Amino acid sequence: MRRPCLFPLALLMLLPWTVFAANLASPPGVTPDPRLAATATPRISGATRSCLTCHRTLTPGLVQDWESSRHAGIAPADAMQKSALEKRISATQLPEALSRHAVGCFECHGLNAEQHPDAFDHFGRKIHTVVSPNDCQVCHPAEVSQYRGSKKAHALGNLMDNPLYHTLVEASIGQRRFDNGALHAHPSTASTRHEACLGCHGTLVVASGTRTVTSNLGDAEIPQLEGWPNQGVGRRNPDGSLGACTSCHPRHAFSIEVARKPSTCGQCHLEPDVPAYNVYKESKHGNIYNSLEKNWDFTAVPWQVGKHFTAPTCATCHNSLITHGANTIIAERTHDFGARLWVRIFGLPYTHPQPTSGDTTSIRNKDGLPLPTTFSGEPATEFLLTPGQQNDRKRAMTEVCGACHSAGVIEGHFAKFDQTLKETDAMTLTATRLVLSTWEKGFEDKTNPFDETLEKMWVRQWLFYGNSIRYASAMTGAPDYAAFKNGWWELNENLSRMHDVFRMKGLLPTPAR
Amino acid sequence: MRRPCLFPLALLMLLPWTVFAANLASPPGVTPDPRLAATATPRISGATRSCLTCHRTLTPGLVQDWESSRHAGIAPADAMQKSALEKRISATQLPEALSRHAVGCFECHGLNAEQHPDAFDHFGRKIHTVVSPNDCQVCHPAEVSQYRGSKKAHALGNLMDNPLYHTLVEASIGQRRFDNGALHAHPSTASTRHEACLGCHGTLVVASGTRTVTSNLGDAEIPQLEGWPNQGVGRRNPDGSLGACTSCHPRHAFSIEVARKPSTCGQCHLEPDVPAYNVYKESKHGNIYNSLEKNWDFTAVPWQVGKHFTAPTCATCHNSLITHGANTIIAERTHDFGARLWVRIFGLPYTHPQPTSGDTTSIRNKDGLPLPTTFSGEPATEFLLTPGQQNDRKRAMTEVCGACHSAGVIEGHFAKFDQTLKETDAMTLTATRLVLSTWEKGFEDKTNPFDETLEKMWVRQWLFYGNSIRYASAMTGAPDYAAFKNGWWELNENLSRMHDVFRMKGLLPTPAR
Amino acid sequence: MRRPCLFPLALLMLLPWTVFAANLASPPGVTPDPRLAATATPRISGATRSCLTCHRTLTPGLVQDWESSRHAGIAPADAMQKSALEKRISATQLPEALSRHAVGCFECHGLNAEQHPDAFDHFGRKIHTVVSPNDCQVCHPAEVSQYRGSKKAHALGNLMDNPLYHTLVEASIGQRRFDNGALHAHPSTASTRHEACLGCHGTLVVASGTRTVTSNLGDAEIPQLEGWPNQGVGRRNPDGSLGACTSCHPRHAFSIEVARKPSTCGQCHLEPDVPAYNVYKESKHGNIYNSLEKNWDFTAVPWQVGKHFTAPTCATCHNSLITHGANTIIAERTHDFGARLWVRIFGLPYTHPQPTSGDTTSIRNKDGLPLPTTFSGEPATEFLLTPGQQNDRKRAMTEVCGACHSAGVIEGHFAKFDQTLKETDAMTLTATRLVLSTWEKGFEDKTNPFDETLEKMWVRQWLFYGNSIRYASAMTGAPDYAAFKNGWWELNENLSRMHDVFRMKGLLPTPAR
Repeated sequence: MRRPCLFPLALLMLLPWTVFAANLASPPGVTPDPRLAATATPRISGATRSCLTCHRTLTPGLVQDWESSRHAGIAPADAMQKSALEKRISATQLPEALSRHAVGCFECHGLNAEQHPDAFDHFGRKIHTVVSPNDCQVCHPAEVSQYRGSKKAHALGNLMDNPLYHTLVEASIGQRRFDNGALHAHPSTASTRHEACLGCHGTLVVASGTRTVTSNLGDAEIPQLEGWPNQGVGRRNPDGSLGACTSCHPRHAFSIEVARKPSTCGQCHLEPDVPAYNVYKESKHGNIYNSLEKNWDFTAVPWQVGKHFTAPTCATCHNSLITHGANTIIAERTHDFGARLWVRIFGLPYTHPQPTSGDTTSIRNKDGLPLPTTFSGEPATEFLLTPGQQNDRKRAMTEVCGACHSAGVIEGHFAKFDQTLKETDAMTLTATRLVLSTWEKGFEDKTNPFDETLEKMWVRQWLFYGNSIRYASAMTGAPDYAAFKNGWWELNENLSRMHDVFRMKGLLPTPAR
Repeated sequence: MRRPCLFPLALLMLLPWTVFAANLASPPGVTPDPRLAATATPRISGATRSCLTCHRTLTPGLVQDWESSRHAGIAPADAMQKSALEKRISATQLPEALSRHAVGCFECHGLNAEQHPDAFDHFGRKIHTVVSPNDCQVCHPAEVSQYRGSKKAHALGNLMDNPLYHTLVEASIGQRRFDNGALHAHPSTASTRHEACLGCHGTLVVASGTRTVTSNLGDAEIPQLEGWPNQGVGRRNPDGSLGACTSCHPRHAFSIEVARKPSTCGQCHLEPDVPAYNVYKESKHGNIYNSLEKNWDFTAVPWQVGKHFTAPTCATCHNSLITHGANTIIAERTHDFGARLWVRIFGLPYTHPQPTSGDTTSIRNKDGLPLPTTFSGEPATEFLLTPGQQNDRKRAMTEVCGACHSAGVIEGHFAKFDQTLKETDAMTLTATRLVLSTWEKGFEDKTNPFDETLEKMWVRQWLFYGNSIRYASAMTGAPDYAAFKNGWWELNENLSRMHDVFRMKGLLPTPAR
Repeated sequence: MRRPCLFPLALLMLLPWTVFAANLASPPGVTPDPRLAATATPRISGATRSCLTCHRTLTPGLVQDWESSRHAGIAPADAMQKSALEKRISATQLPEALSRHAVGCFECHGLNAEQHPDAFDHFGRKIHTVVSPNDCQVCHPAEVSQYRGSKKAHALGNLMDNPLYHTLVEASIGQRRFDNGALHAHPSTASTRHEACLGCHGTLVVASGTRTVTSNLGDAEIPQLEGWPNQGVGRRNPDGSLGACTSCHPRHAFSIEVARKPSTCGQCHLEPDVPAYNVYKESKHGNIYNSLEKNWDFTAVPWQVGKHFTAPTCATCHNSLITHGANTIIAERTHDFGARLWVRIFGLPYTHPQPTSGDTTSIRNKDGLPLPTTFSGEPATEFLLTPGQQNDRKRAMTEVCGACHSAGVIEGHFAKFDQTLKETDAMTLTATRLVLSTWEKGFEDKTNPFDETLEKMWVRQWLFYGNSIRYASAMTGAPDYAAFKNGWWELNENLSRMHDVFRMKGLLPTPAR
């Protein structure tokens, strides 16, 4: 008799094992990216292996973070084989030495050593602490190139090299002493600039020699760095490059999931001055994210609307590659985060078309001041997008809205938004005229436009309250940021108080300065 | 010899396949509701299929959202077969055409076309954009009927048809211009009303003809709608109905999970005026939710305490059907969100018994003003719940508390709450008397009680600070909202500042108006 | 012929069943701790069984919460068998009666009855409502002993037994009445103290007899408790012990997961006065937590860096047992939450070394005031840590940082932190000198240093703004809490306003008091 043919059945039955085995392989608490399963784990270079020998013991959390990363899980050569839309690497060719190994410690910290004034000898190898966009662009040139042109890359210079903004910085974070009945201003310190404004805008990182540190593995030389640690978006690195990719892809997992989560953007874009994150959380988009995100896939590339997520995060609208199904592009990936923006709604008294260049230090308004509008709101047109350019960007954004919303909803939304920009600008003008009147009457000193109480109240009007209302409008629904929470209520109450100060100032003798 | 009997063994061994297959069937990032597995996916009607033909391409995110919904997954006729406590549909009979298909595009957007002034011809079918409670009630009559009687349904009229509140709205969000040393008030715009107050309270949506829009699939007529888009709870729809079910069950998944998550309520019930969500997050209930909710089941009906969740969300206490085990009812489902509330703690200077009607425009206090209390706090009793009615509601709420807390804890909690209401009312009275004194002395103009600085400070006392303290008390534990964060500290500091203004005003000449 | 040997193959094929079965056994919505699988579920004592008979019906949520707990899942005798680092129980021997059963209702509520003035007869057994650290220490003596010495345990006395702080409490939460143009202060009530300050600091819980409550299961005697319910960290229990373990391990699951989640600490440590939680959420650590925590293991003991979590929560740095791998200790577990802190940065005008004792009531500064510094910032050295002791603690904290960060990053971070403490102290001094000047000129009354507007503005300087800046610095990166959100901007604007008040006060007649 024939014995039963067990082989095919057995093979079939064993299939669930692949699921079972995958579960076994996954250490508790760490979810390996399922997409990595298709390719073999790449070899680790000899240089990186020698780093790991000590650092597995010295900084175990750092090493395990890297081990969970895509950098550890796939060699660049394999990453380059993916289809155009699935690719996360934009280089088209790479040096052989880099392409066949995991992207490990030495692959990044040993790259372009000759361009790094912060490079130092570390047990026989030349490495640098501050891995920069110049290093990252070896594999990710498109992203670094886009970023380089953005306002983010220029965030340090745009703030500190603009004399007017610099005055605002000093009025905000400078020190004061009280003597003989008067307040005396003193300059801010590097440390406070770093922790406040430059925490987001980025520091100037300067290498100034080395020093010796001691651990239980012995002594080691490390570079002496000023302005470090810092992960501000406009950081000026020792190699001269601008930016810190780790702002959004934090060390050492460099996760796309983190970058796509709104709390990442929310580290800097938050109330009271840039309440994007706060407004998002209160909006319907944020509400759906908050309720359902645990079921979404934040690591898929391309990011498919409806399949991987059902409401947008910041990244969806502003920079991710978004598709319908696997192949139909709704929005191209960009690392110029302003590329889908046509109007600038924060940071300045009046809204205005986005500037044409990411570097805004050369802008001059009609009065010769380094501002994109005059004090009465007139735009410095030649430095700003034309109506046609604005329209192109608005259309790109509208494509993203259109993935879920019909034309009537989108048009109704933007009509309200346009009106809100006009009204908040008009309210800024009201406050500005009140301050100008105070200066004319000599109640306050206009030399420094940011240092007296009434002037600070004026800054509140646009920097806090106007901005909140604009963001609430832009993100279609955070009614409390339009109404009571830093919105219209505050705009009107603060104006009423400004008028009281204006009248009271008339009663006082000229201040002792 | 007998060959081994493999069949039963093989069958048994294949059982794990059901788990394996279930995993395969679930697309990444979307968790299908396991309860839907029992019934076959319903057929999609011909009309809806023709909608999907274009909209799968035009608005793919919207369509996929709907596909993940219960509306797409179960026909009403099957939904009606469930047991009384498991049922999510309250209709007892339905037109044959609706009952056997998925609840798709046309089933809602084509319903009751004759009652919809916003209905328009769309490629041969008459559809409307604004699906309203009147449409939803075909399947969900109990929920719509409960909602219709609630304060939420009347949120637009209760605010805008009350002359006093309307004055507060204009003082809050109206525009101001500065001329000749004085501030001049100008009315708010429809757009700003919509984005601020009416974002939550709801707009009046009016259909005013149609217009043509162009997409890559050609031209289409769409209705011209004023007050749209909007999802405020008291929206007045073109068909005359009140409310937007999508406020809490957002389009187009209409998820019960979203509605049960606190961030949904938190879109409108948040600081500074209604800090319910903020207080919740800071409370022990919110802390447990925040820590453990990822393991809870937010889609189960009925919602079983201890099994599906271990700390309440807003919905637990205020409106969900809550059971112990599968069958013992702790609280009945209600879509009148005030049905378990006996005292009103926000939005007005003094606390008072809940009004008897959801429409509060007819309330008049002893002084003839459209307020539920006088300026000194005396309640307009005939429009408010009797003590007996209050007690019934408190008992319903106490049943929910009692699922986890013993009588001593509950009684101790409510004793403190009662005391807090008295004290915050007394603090409101202190501020009110100070303002009345200012009016008497002629320092401020009482014609508009909300437009001068001192009056705005008075509004802060009850609308922001008093409310925060009451919510902190009501939710048993958000000590910082009782103390420093918009709580007692602010109540006392603001009072001290009000007193300073009161005294300073005496020094000033009568304002130029 | 030989028949095929099916047995080993069949056995092998059945293995996936263990996964399948494990899934079946897990009730929806409740995730059993996998570590409990190794030991058999312990027997429930007869006494506890009789509690459950009624309470399963009376308080089902409470009972199910307990059933999901480790207390229900493992007998103390088994828990004591674990390895030193895996152990969650620090007792080395236990009474036989406790060691072999689940830790159920009666095991805790019946413990040490003779020491409990709140114990009462409950259907034939003597039980008490307020389970206290004295009860918990039967199994957890090390934790209770550490806690007893901490500032947290003494939080009630440290606040209310210090006459100066007590004055601040009354100025903050006391009531005020307006009569004859003046504000009159009235004392706070027990209820408001309880809901505000003592919500976190803890109440004095006093048993004062019993009363009868009625449920659908009949009448029962329950104790009459003042100051109850409360879960403040410094609660004084009827048995004389200090603290409430349920502050962080909430009833009745007593979960280590909840205790390790930052929202737990965030119930009390939040803005504006102690913005630790707010700063954390905005920091890079909080950003990573927020983005990835759903994949982390919050129940593992020991807690392994890189494996169970990839960014710290509050517990990581301040009290958990942290290891590298299963065996290498990075930080020892402590329930004295200040044990890794060397400097005190909140709650007082100036920063200063941590006090040597958790009970700070005996501290006297050079001026004889019960404060750790003078009004000009000079520390009361003899009551505070020596530089050597400070260094030991800083070293313990640095070990935790070092698990992921290199020496250069850590040193750069702490250098900035030291500078920030100096600067915020200098800014406090500026404000203090302004207030002193006002007192000298007789513009304000210095009898009570907290009750007038200018004094309250002074309190804001250090209690809100200085603290925010210090926390932003301590947690390396919440730039908006250093800049605009309660940070330097407010510090400078408030100072400018203080100066205005100082000058205006000179214009006013002496206040009517």
